[in-house]
Amino acid sequence: MKITTTPTGLDTHRYPCDPWRLVESEIGDDLGLTETLFGLGNGYLGMRANPDEGRDAHAHGTFVNGFHETWKIKHAEDAFAFAKTGQTIVNVPDAKLIKLYIDDEPLLIQSADLESYERAVDFRSGALERELIWQTPSGRRARVRSERIVSLEHRHLAVITFEVTMLDGDAPVVLSSQILNRQEGEDEYEVKAASLGEGMDPRKAQAFEHRVLNPEVQRHEHDEHGDDEIVLGYRCTNSGMTVAAGIRHVFEYDGFFEARTDVGPHRSKTVFTVDAVEGKTIRLTKFISYHTSTGVPARELADRCHRTLRRAERLGVDEIRTAQRAWLDWFWRRADIEIDGDPSAQQAVRWNLFQLAQASARVQEQGIGAKAVSGSGYEGHYFWDTEVYVIPFLALTDPGAAKKLLRFRWRMLDAARRRADEMAVAGALYPWRTINGEEASAYYAAGTAQYHINAAVVFAVKRYVDATGDEEFLAKEGVEILIETARMYEDLGFYHHNGERSFQIHGVTGPDEYTTVVNNNLYTNVMAQLNLRYAAETVEHLTETRPELVESLRRRLGLTDDEVAGWREAADAMYLPFDEELGIHQQDDVFLERERWPFELTRDDQYPLLLNFHPLVIYRHQVLKQADVVLAMFLRGEAFDLDQRRRNFDYYDPITTGDSSLSACVQAVVAAQVGHDELAFDYFRQALYVDLADTHGNASDGVHIASAGGVWAGVVHGFGGFHDAGAHLEFSPRLPEAWERAAFHVTHHDRLLRVELTGRTADGVAGGSVTLVEGDTVSVRGADGGIHEIAEGVSLEI
Amino acid sequence: MKITTTPTGLDTHRYPCDPWRLVESEIGDDLGLTETLFGLGNGYLGMRANPDEGRDAHAHGTFVNGFHETWKIKHAEDAFAFAKTGQTIVNVPDAKLIKLYIDDEPLLIQSADLESYERAVDFRSGALERELIWQTPSGRRARVRSERIVSLEHRHLAVITFEVTMLDGDAPVVLSSQILNRQEGEDEYEVKAASLGEGMDPRKAQAFEHRVLNPEVQRHEHDEHGDDEIVLGYRCTNSGMTVAAGIRHVFEYDGFFEARTDVGPHRSKTVFTVDAVEGKTIRLTKFISYHTSTGVPARELADRCHRTLRRAERLGVDEIRTAQRAWLDWFWRRADIEIDGDPSAQQAVRWNLFQLAQASARVQEQGIGAKAVSGSGYEGHYFWDTEVYVIPFLALTDPGAAKKLLRFRWRMLDAARRRADEMAVAGALYPWRTINGEEASAYYAAGTAQYHINAAVVFAVKRYVDATGDEEFLAKEGVEILIETARMYEDLGFYHHNGERSFQIHGVTGPDEYTTVVNNNLYTNVMAQLNLRYAAETVEHLTETRPELVESLRRRLGLTDDEVAGWREAADAMYLPFDEELGIHQQDDVFLERERWPFELTRDDQYPLLLNFHPLVIYRHQVLKQADVVLAMFLRGEAFDLDQRRRNFDYYDPITTGDSSLSACVQAVVAAQVGHDELAFDYFRQALYVDLADTHGNASDGVHIASAGGVWAGVVHGFGGFHDAGAHLEFSPRLPEAWERAAFHVTHHDRLLRVELTGRTADGVAGGSVTLVEGDTVSVRGADGGIHEIAEGVSLEI
Repeated sequence: MKITTTPTGLDTHRYPCDPWRLVESEIGDDLGLTETLFGLGNGYLGMRANPDEGRDAHAHGTFVNGFHETWKIKHAEDAFAFAKTGQTIVNVPDAKLIKLYIDDEPLLIQSADLESYERAVDFRSGALERELIWQTPSGRRARVRSERIVSLEHRHLAVITFEVTMLDGDAPVVLSSQILNRQEGEDEYEVKAASLGEGMDPRKAQAFEHRVLNPEVQRHEHDEHGDDEIVLGYRCTNSGMTVAAGIRHVFEYDGFFEARTDVGPHRSKTVFTVDAVEGKTIRLTKFISYHTSTGVPARELADRCHRTLRRAERLGVDEIRTAQRAWLDWFWRRADIEIDGDPSAQQAVRWNLFQLAQASARVQEQGIGAKAVSGSGYEGHYFWDTEVYVIPFLALTDPGAAKKLLRFRWRMLDAARRRADEMAVAGALYPWRTINGEEASAYYAAGTAQYHINAAVVFAVKRYVDATGDEEFLAKEGVEILIETARMYEDLGFYHHNGERSFQIHGVTGPDEYTTVVNNNLYTNVMAQLNLRYAAETVEHLTETRPELVESLRRRLGLTDDEVAGWREAADAMYLPFDEELGIHQQDDVFLERERWPFELTRDDQYPLLLNFHPLVIYRHQVLKQADVVLAMFLRGEAFDLDQRRRNFDYYDPITTGDSSLSACVQAVVAAQVGHDELAFDYFRQALYVDLADTHGNASDGVHIASAGGVWAGVVHGFGGFHDAGAHLEFSPRLPEAWERAAFHVTHHDRLLRVELTGRTADGVAGGSVTLVEGDTVSVRGADGGIHEIAEGVSLEI
Repeated sequence: MKITTTPTGLDTHRYPCDPWRLVESEIGDDLGLTETLFGLGNGYLGMRANPDEGRDAHAHGTFVNGFHETWKIKHAEDAFAFAKTGQTIVNVPDAKLIKLYIDDEPLLIQSADLESYERAVDFRSGALERELIWQTPSGRRARVRSERIVSLEHRHLAVITFEVTMLDGDAPVVLSSQILNRQEGEDEYEVKAASLGEGMDPRKAQAFEHRVLNPEVQRHEHDEHGDDEIVLGYRCTNSGMTVAAGIRHVFEYDGFFEARTDVGPHRSKTVFTVDAVEGKTIRLTKFISYHTSTGVPARELADRCHRTLRRAERLGVDEIRTAQRAWLDWFWRRADIEIDGDPSAQQAVRWNLFQLAQASARVQEQGIGAKAVSGSGYEGHYFWDTEVYVIPFLALTDPGAAKKLLRFRWRMLDAARRRADEMAVAGALYPWRTINGEEASAYYAAGTAQYHINAAVVFAVKRYVDATGDEEFLAKEGVEILIETARMYEDLGFYHHNGERSFQIHGVTGPDEYTTVVNNNLYTNVMAQLNLRYAAETVEHLTETRPELVESLRRRLGLTDDEVAGWREAADAMYLPFDEELGIHQQDDVFLERERWPFELTRDDQYPLLLNFHPLVIYRHQVLKQADVVLAMFLRGEAFDLDQRRRNFDYYDPITTGDSSLSACVQAVVAAQVGHDELAFDYFRQALYVDLADTHGNASDGVHIASAGGVWAGVVHGFGGFHDAGAHLEFSPRLPEAWERAAFHVTHHDRLLRVELTGRTADGVAGGSVTLVEGDTVSVRGADGGIHEIAEGVSLEI
């Protein structure tokens, strides 16, 4: 069901096509969208693409992963174990602001008279570059160039270079470089962030009702070189988290100028006043650093900022640029997808991959929020998205990052054990949405009831271990996750004896939130089965390979042979609802009994349904927000034969609204796998443009990072048909007709492979080849059906 | 499942048994409970039994039916059509306060040195009487007597007489008679109402976060007789409702005294200072009046108070007492239940009936809240309870009151139409809980999802029309309710074609809130069937008898023959889930598939479950909060044969926790009907003492008025086996073994019948007789199985 307006891609007039850049050639009024599309980040620090000069903005935003405030969730009607602690990512003080005045007139990008303008984010240099010529109100022309980098190499660093050159005649020029705590709303010119706290869209962040950032540190240093440094420190009222934000200026101008610094608790600035002479370039380099902590005092963080800034200055901008480019070279070598014959798709795919890089490069042992660090949507919370859509990408491109994300889940185990206890189940139950490990979902039917979160974490562990063979991680952290999550499912479910004995799980919500709290949601059961079985297999495997480790698990976690056998038994007896008559899997026990949604009576403006109908109206109908059975088939393809996958897909696809941005990419992969080539390509394009064409209308809240992961999967698992069969790898090339050639890369057990997809031959068979770019030999099933071991530099037809 | 501690009845030491009174012989610390048990009300005005002197209190409370404040419901996560407007009954200014000082020492009942004490509410005089002898701190003794009446005849009137007599020696005596707006928390001595706004018990009222009552009128009149009158008027901040509260004093003392009045916006008082002489009685008569309105200015209400107070003074206390007794004589003649051989049950039954009188006497065209006017529990909201548990009682005892309650629902139709529209269904959808007609349930799973509310209203219409033959009401108001509610069900459900074609209703919650949002809840389907069929029958009947009326319905409501036929078709095709193997009706499509609740692992202190487990934990198990299938069998006994009823009862009873106070009475009736005599009596006693023995621990929040209705049903429909078969009446006497004889009364089509239940004869057959006390002949099935027409004064063996 393609409800969203068919994406037409980018407006190439305004956004000219470029294989390695997203370019804006003129200014529009879609501020929220462009702030997201041109935003920069490194997984730790994110800066929305507000113009350097500040106003106008949809939402000024600088976000640090995991830096959040807490608040008490007030339920209109409370009940036992309802989530108590709201957690919301905090917009940290804005250090990127550089106001420009010429003849005392401010440059206001949205209304300025611009002779020329271009802004671009470059996927190889990792910089946001802007160049414009401004016709000032007093009739002079000035060239203004700026470059912004959020370092992919240095976690706490960003740098802006800002250049002004008068083109005809001299003029007084003022640059006011600031740090501004926008929480305090001091600046009357700022457009009130329209996306915060309004209405009932659960995808948006809450507005705070109290002061969040309490100033604790204000420092100003004017060193021997004449460089200015300002560092401000704050502590969050409730969460107690601390942040320091620092800026350091290197000002270059061959002529007269003055600099004056004012430091205040919520706004600090250094103002450079210049007698600018025609043709002489004024250059301000602004190093920016953020440090955050859950406990370290703000003054200690301020010291860290200072050290980061000093080091950055010593490195200099050129070194920082070089490191940025080197990191991206490394990234693209592992993650690039090449498309011939469809330049706009090429550009869009790379934009999506670039977002994944920006979400994961320096995330370390934090989660990746639904919007990564690109906006405040979903309050900066971590969901299952990372495990299902992003970690599989990282496992095959940047396994080190994947491992850190999994270690983050491991560190959350204690909180998950407490949550399980509250929810009257054994083991550990990961919260549906969280920053600090506590459940923050205030609507349990589409939150806490999604018990499939545990299996998502285990799925990601398995994908990571399968892709890397990292037994060390499995033995140290992984197995503990597996044990505690398996315990939860074993306790949650029960043996059902009406008819054939089976293990059933009742009262849960699957990924499709348009039916909630159902019995035997297929997705949940299929994934719980994986969880239980993988846990049992792993413990059994470790019992052989590392008996001393298992002995310690027995002591520490009370692990017993009986419970391991119990997991296997439950997995084997797992009930997978199936309708014999239709020959399809049921989404849940009663899904097929429901009334079909009256699509023919539903107006376009009534989508997404969740914003236009009471949940009860939606829940009682056969209608899907997003892939559910189809997602199960994507993640556990081996559990469904091809014919079954096709029948299931054909039933569920027409009743899937795609109201979720996570739907299109999954539909694309499975459509490709079952041979619906045209539909697959259509869905792929929908996924490709979720943000770029703002097909869900909320790209202004931040990047749909999981969908970006889904785009990668669309090529690799969909068109490439990549499948890790354990002992060997398999591919099943299905190049879209619109493309002439495509290529992608995967890293598997330290081997880097390049896969090329070529067009169909005369007899209609799509083909391709795989090349081992570096690493030991690897086994791959070839086009001939046989399994071949290929060595470095060797290619194989697939 | 009898989870609640088996009620042992009243502590007869503290509460000596009395057939016509509830008596308290000494003071305890269970203030919340006694404030409820000894409370007075007339359906419009309710006063909790706080001592005249004020402190100490669990919750001071004076409530006017429907007088409420509104507030915006803040949902932790909002969604389309979630309830928007909170509505909370307002504790109106307290006019019953009379503080007493002797030798300047206050009488504080809870801590005073009392030589004697008795407080009693008399079910025939309708007065709360208290007499005590106080040993003052200065060593003197004083007799203090007071009598409080909330008039069952005069809607807006209450009266208190307060007498003080010094018993040994003279003393200065001060009486301070007040009106106090306790919302303002001016009185530092008041114990903070512990029941408000704390914790997560959904049965309790919310505390306000803003000033509710804004003073608009303060009047003081000192008339020619030396009598004082004070009237205060207020307007609610959000709802705009207005209230005036007035007091008027007649002070009698044969000796020196002074009176001084202070009038303020939140506290006004007249202070009587007396040189009291031993043996001379000081008597203060305090007339109290309340008037409320949704729109009339407070000053106009103040005029009304004045007129009520003047008229009351002219009538005098004796006249008011006489009218009170006359009203109750009339009530008991129609509603009394006599029990021989079990004096404590006799007392408890009459207390419950007295509560029904106090809830309904002057309710007029308002609803009856879950606590009537006895407390703030459930925020003063109207639920389905009134229709299912109270109107059936009134239809057979005080049909005039029943009719007014139904007219109230008719007047709510427009709001219900708007709600239906919001919920994307046709017709009208009554809100689950409301005061002003708007949905106020903030938790839809156990609120809005209870679509059976519509059928409850229709059930009450049918009970009323069946009991009275009031065709006029049916044609004018009733049919409009029937049409709009039937339309809702016809649209909510759908024809299901898997297997046999049937009409199904999905995504609803039945009365048992321990499973929610299920498909084909048996109760809902059975009651919707009644609704649809009765609507069709009524329209067809009126088409014959009043074609012009039906013509007007066609014009006004767009009624068509096709839709009427559609209702009948849906009713006939209604799916009633049945399990062939167990031979029982399923509570819903999947109820029997669920895991049984682990009762054996559940500690006593984990009940009620809803306060100790997350809803999801409860929902996925077979466990009932309250009767559901069993309730369906109670309300529509004719739809289930006796054997079926027994099998159903035997399955569901053991898994019913009775966590709802509405459970025991229904289990009692059906247990009696299916022949489980002992169990029936046990449940009946549980229902009987829900408040009196505080078996649910929340009697302090107010009377469980629906349970009181259930107690009546327990005798009439349970032990009496009364059934209105249309053309004749049927009884099926089953006198409990513990009783020697019982009798009850029903009024049917203007005929008053008295039914006597006698013990079992030697051959084990319980017997009884029915006597037509007044009215035309009536047809009754006799003990011989034949149908007999009996005339006034004639009895028949049944």
